Amino acid sequence: LKKDGLLDMTLVVSDRPCAAAGVFTTNLVKAAPVLFDMQQLQGNNTHIRAVTINTKCANACTGEQGLQNAAAMAQATAAAVGCGGDEVLVMSTGVIGAQLNMEKVHHGVGLAGQALGTDWQAAALGIMTTDTWPKLASIEVQTSDGKSYTIAGIAKGAGMIAPNMATMLSVIVTDAIITPTALQDALQAANARSFNRVVVDGDMSTNDTVLLLANGASGVQADSDSFTEALTAVCIKLAQDVVRDGEGVTKFITLTVTGTDSDAAARQIANTIATSPLVKTAFFGGDANWGRIIAAAGRAGVALNPAACKLWIMSGETEALTADALLLFANAMPTAYSEARATDIFRAKSVSIRLLCGTGTGEATIWTCDLSHDYVSINGDYRS
Amino acid sequence: LKKDGLLDMTLVVSDRPCAAAGVFTTNLVKAAPVLFDMQQLQGNNTHIRAVTINTKCANACTGEQGLQNAAAMAQATAAAVGCGGDEVLVMSTGVIGAQLNMEKVHHGVGLAGQALGTDWQAAALGIMTTDTWPKLASIEVQTSDGKSYTIAGIAKGAGMIAPNMATMLSVIVTDAIITPTALQDALQAANARSFNRVVVDGDMSTNDTVLLLANGASGVQADSDSFTEALTAVCIKLAQDVVRDGEGVTKFITLTVTGTDSDAAARQIANTIATSPLVKTAFFGGDANWGRIIAAAGRAGVALNPAACKLWIMSGETEALTADALLLFANAMPTAYSEARATDIFRAKSVSIRLLCGTGTGEATIWTCDLSHDYVSINGDYRS
Repeated sequence: LKKDGLLDMTLVVSDRPCAAAGVFTTNLVKAAPVLFDMQQLQGNNTHIRAVTINTKCANACTGEQGLQNAAAMAQATAAAVGCGGDEVLVMSTGVIGAQLNMEKVHHGVGLAGQALGTDWQAAALGIMTTDTWPKLASIEVQTSDGKSYTIAGIAKGAGMIAPNMATMLSVIVTDAIITPTALQDALQAANARSFNRVVVDGDMSTNDTVLLLANGASGVQADSDSFTEALTAVCIKLAQDVVRDGEGVTKFITLTVTGTDSDAAARQIANTIATSPLVKTAFFGGDANWGRIIAAAGRAGVALNPAACKLWIMSGETEALTADALLLFANAMPTAYSEARATDIFRAKSVSIRLLCGTGTGEATIWTCDLSHDYVSINGDYRS
Repeated sequence: LKKDGLLDMTLVVSDRPCAAAGVFTTNLVKAAPVLFDMQQLQGNNTHIRAVTINTKCANACTGEQGLQNAAAMAQATAAAVGCGGDEVLVMSTGVIGAQLNMEKVHHGVGLAGQALGTDWQAAALGIMTTDTWPKLASIEVQTSDGKSYTIAGIAKGAGMIAPNMATMLSVIVTDAIITPTALQDALQAANARSFNRVVVDGDMSTNDTVLLLANGASGVQADSDSFTEALTAVCIKLAQDVVRDGEGVTKFITLTVTGTDSDAAARQIANTIATSPLVKTAFFGGDANWGRIIAAAGRAGVALNPAACKLWIMSGETEALTADALLLFANAMPTAYSEARATDIFRAKSVSIRLLCGTGTGEATIWTCDLSHDYVSINGDYRS
C-alpha cells in the first residue's frame, strides 16, 4: 500500500481472547472499518483476538463495497491467525474515497500473519501515515498485593485531528483481568482526558478509533480506579505525542481556560483559540500577538466579558499558573509587559497559555500546535 | 501609521447630513470604534457627516483609554470638517491590543481634512492593510420616472474574515433619499447576502463594520426594494473582492450546499467546509481530494446522511448546477469519474462546488478561498 516499501499493514494479535472496548469518531460520515467495528463489538466484546490496521487508504466514503472489504479484511485476518471472523476488528487510515486494493490487503495480512512477533515498535511504525516517528506508551501498574499488570499502546495521528470524542487511531492492550463494561468505562474516561483534548487542525476524521483489548494474561484483577488512572496516563502520552508530531508542527502549546460558567464553555473557548488560523500562524511566527487569542475567545459562541479576562503566557508545558507567568491582558487592556520577554516566551518550542474568563468554576486544558508552511505543503499535495 | 509612507488615514465626508445605518461584528470582544459607533448611531442616525478610518491599529482590547481615543478621533474629525462631534463615525483596523498613537491621528486627520476631494480610489487605498489592491464598487439606479441615484462603496478585507454578521470594514454611500430605518433594513438584507457569505480564514474580527450613509443629494426618493437590490449588488462585488484578495489567496471557490432541512443547516455545512484547513490546503494544491469535503460536511454538527449526498465540481463561478458538472460522489461512494478531468477543474483559478445533502429545501452559497504558504507567511509575522 505504501509505495516506498515501508511497513503498511499491522496485526495486533492476542494468543487468548480479550475483553474489548472502543471509542469512535462522532463524524456523521463514518468510514467502513468504524461501522464494521461498532457492529462487531456489539456482538462480541468478550473474546476479541486481533486488530488489523492498514495505511494509505481510509476505506471511507466507499459504500457497500467498502463494508464488504472491511469484513473481508477481518476474514483474511481470522484465517491468518486461526480465529473466528467475529473475533477480529479492523482499522484503516489514508485517503478518503478510494476502495481498498484487496489483493494487496490479502497479501499483506498473510505476510503479517507469518511475521507475528513482540516488536511493538514495528507495530507503531506500521500504522504511521504522515507521522514522522512512531508513538508508543506503556505503564506497569502495581496492585496492593504486590502483583502487577501492564498497559501499552500505539497511536498514529498527524492531521485531521480535532477534539470531538475519539480522535486518530490507537490500539491499547493490557494483560489485566477486567470486564468489558469496566474496560469501556475506563476507555471513555481516559479518552475524555487525553485524545479529546488535543487539536492539530480542527478537522475531524471519518476513521478515528481507539481500541482497548484486555486478555487477562497477567492473572491480575484490575481495580477500576487505578486502571483508569494508568490508562489515562498512557492515553495522555500518546495524545500529546500526536500533537508534537502533528503535520508541520514546530511548537507544542498547552492552553488552559478557566473561570467560565462551565467546563463545556471553557472547552469551547479553548477549542476556538486552538483552531484559529491567525492564532496558529502567530505561534508559528513566534509572534506574541495575544490580541488574536482574545479575539478568538470572543467569537467562541459562549458568554465572555472582556473586562473580566486575564491572559498569561508561560514557558514550557504547564497547566497551572507559575510564579513567573507573564500577564499580558487585564481590565480590558494590555498590561505594561515587556515585549522582549513575551517574544522570548513565544519563540520557545513549548508555550503555555492561561486565560481566565471570570469568576466561574469551569475550566479546560487542551494541547495544540502551530500552523506552519509544512502543514500547507503536506496537505496541498497529499494524495500524490 | 504605516511605516512606508502609504496612505493610512481616510476621511469620508458629506457636505450635507446623512441618514446612516451600520452592521457590526458579533464578536463579544468589540473594538473601541465599534462600541463608539454603535452608541453614536443610537443617538444620531439622521445627520451623520463623516467617517474617519485609520489603519495599522485596531484600537481593540484597549479598555477605557481606547474608547477615549475613538471619541477624540471623532472630535478631531469634527474640527477638521466643521461639524459636530456627534456627527462623526470612526473605524480602525490593524493590530489588536495596541493603543492609537493620538499625535499621529490628530496630525493625519488634519492633513486628510485639508486634502478632501472626490478621489474614491484614494479612499479605498487608504483603508488597505494586507489587501493588495483597492476594493470599490458602484451602481447607478434608474427610477421609473427617469431619474437616478448612485450607490458606491469601498471595502478592505484580507484576513480575519468569517461569515458571522458584518465582516471587515466597508463604507458605502448613496445620494438617494431614504429614511434611516429603510437604510438599516436594506443594509441588513444586503449584508446577509454578501459580506456574511464570505470566508477567508474563519477568524472573526473585533472590528468588522459596514457603514451606509445616504445624503439625499440626488433629490431622488429611493424605493426600498430596488434600493436593497442595488445595494446587495454593490455589497456582493465588494465581498467577493475581499475573498479574491484574501491573504495569500490563489483560488476563488463558489460553494453551494442544497437539500438540507433548513438554510441555516446548509450554511453550517458550507461554513464548516470553507473553514476546513484540509479542504483549503487541497484547493491550494489543486488536488481534487473531495473526500475531505465530505468529511468536513460530516462534522458540521447538523444532520447528514452520506447515502443521500451528491457532490459535483464545476469550472468557473457558478451557484447553479451546469450541464458539464462533474459528479464525484453519490450513493455513499465515489462515481467512476475521470481523475484527469477532476484535476483540470481543481487546478483552475475559480472552482465551484455543489453538495446536495438530501431532499430538503434548505440551501446556502458562500464564497471562499484556499489556504496557502503566503497566508502562513503573512500571519506568522504580521506585527513586525
